[in-house]
Amino acid sequence: MIYELYYWPGIQGRGEFVRLVLEEAGADYVDVARQDGGTAAMMRLLEPGASGRFSFAPPFLKAGDLLIGQTANILLFLGTALGLAPKAEAGRLWTHQLQLTVADLVTEVHDTHHPLSVNLYYEEQKKAAKIRAADFTAVRLPKYLDYFEQVLAHNPRGSRFMVGARLSYADLSMFQVVEGMRYAFPHAMAKRESGWPLLVDLHDRVAQRPRIAAYLASARRLPFSEEGIFRHYPELQP
Amino acid sequence: MIYELYYWPGIQGRGEFVRLVLEEAGADYVDVARQDGGTAAMMRLLEPGASGRFSFAPPFLKAGDLLIGQTANILLFLGTALGLAPKAEAGRLWTHQLQLTVADLVTEVHDTHHPLSVNLYYEEQKKAAKIRAADFTAVRLPKYLDYFEQVLAHNPRGSRFMVGARLSYADLSMFQVVEGMRYAFPHAMAKRESGWPLLVDLHDRVAQRPRIAAYLASARRLPFSEEGIFRHYPELQP
Repeated sequence: MIYELYYWPGIQGRGEFVRLVLEEAGADYVDVARQDGGTAAMMRLLEPGASGRFSFAPPFLKAGDLLIGQTANILLFLGTALGLAPKAEAGRLWTHQLQLTVADLVTEVHDTHHPLSVNLYYEEQKKAAKIRAADFTAVRLPKYLDYFEQVLAHNPRGSRFMVGARLSYADLSMFQVVEGMRYAFPHAMAKRESGWPLLVDLHDRVAQRPRIAAYLASARRLPFSEEGIFRHYPELQP
Repeated sequence: MIYELYYWPGIQGRGEFVRLVLEEAGADYVDVARQDGGTAAMMRLLEPGASGRFSFAPPFLKAGDLLIGQTANILLFLGTALGLAPKAEAGRLWTHQLQLTVADLVTEVHDTHHPLSVNLYYEEQKKAAKIRAADFTAVRLPKYLDYFEQVLAHNPRGSRFMVGARLSYADLSMFQVVEGMRYAFPHAMAKRESGWPLLVDLHDRVAQRPRIAAYLASARRLPFSEEGIFRHYPELQP
């Protein structure tokens, strides 16, 4: 099986949560929109085809006959297919619940720089962005990361992983959350990170996994930038 | 099995998507926080327990030993348990994808009245809300409802249901989306509804299903209000 990932070229964005899973599993995949003509191919698949199954927005994944959209839904599928989620229903649902909470956090991060409209430039909504970002770094970011830290602290199988005693896609997503937050809000993170020791330890262990380390050192890993979800703007720092 | 739904009492909110599924299936359930002492019970379950599985926020569902959070995740579980989703993986994932797109829409509706912070009152962010709501009614709402209309139009099994030839939880959610949008943005909907005939027809057929009609006429169906997700503010109308 060669998986085809379709996502905007040039940014990590929501697609990165999928890339990390494919990379950790050593899966064969093509990052289609980064190939010649790939973006046009992606746009065609955003139109209704014979299956009638098309996405509202990228990322989406082609896996054989399946065309699967929504980041968390893609991970729900890949977690089972690639052995990066528990097999039992209770564990699968719990892992997915954590990923959906990551998705909520990611939406809130995005809204720190686009609080009024995705159809306006950041520069056109900077004043509102300052208010939203101040609220985010002071209240929402700690609320989410406190929650994830508590999940690790209360995992009955130990605090090395988010779910059970093995790596799952939820762990890979936590790596990306910590990495993204450090890029976007370095002061807030530097000030508060010591309050999330289990999360930081998880981040570090994920970064050192051989396939993830190789991926992060490769050209396949795009840099963070002010085009993606996690953006660094000096004026939005607390 | 008696399901226990935990959600803020007094509002439809995100809990309503779960209630509609339980009602359509004729499931035995308790809306716990609406019982005496129920909110305290809900707050206790938001703390880490022995299972280590606790939610970031309501709604969550107790089903035997399972405690499941995140609205779309609850529907993923109930869809299978109550026969309101396809059995095959491809259909299950597609139904869930649609529900996650509903979840994105619901978050955007919420942000029309709270664009800057959930920790400020609406009255404190009214100016930003006007800009966000204008963008929402002009661009985002039509984009989402055009998409859902296209899903119905291109369903290879016919345009009566979102997925296949049978009712699924995605149909119940579309009913709630249309209902909520009509409450929150009546002018925008009145102006544009004729462009979404399949969606309006689906809404009407769901409303007429015997169990849904009985539910909507009962005291169990809470009214829309300016405490929930879908809020009507005259100054946010286009």
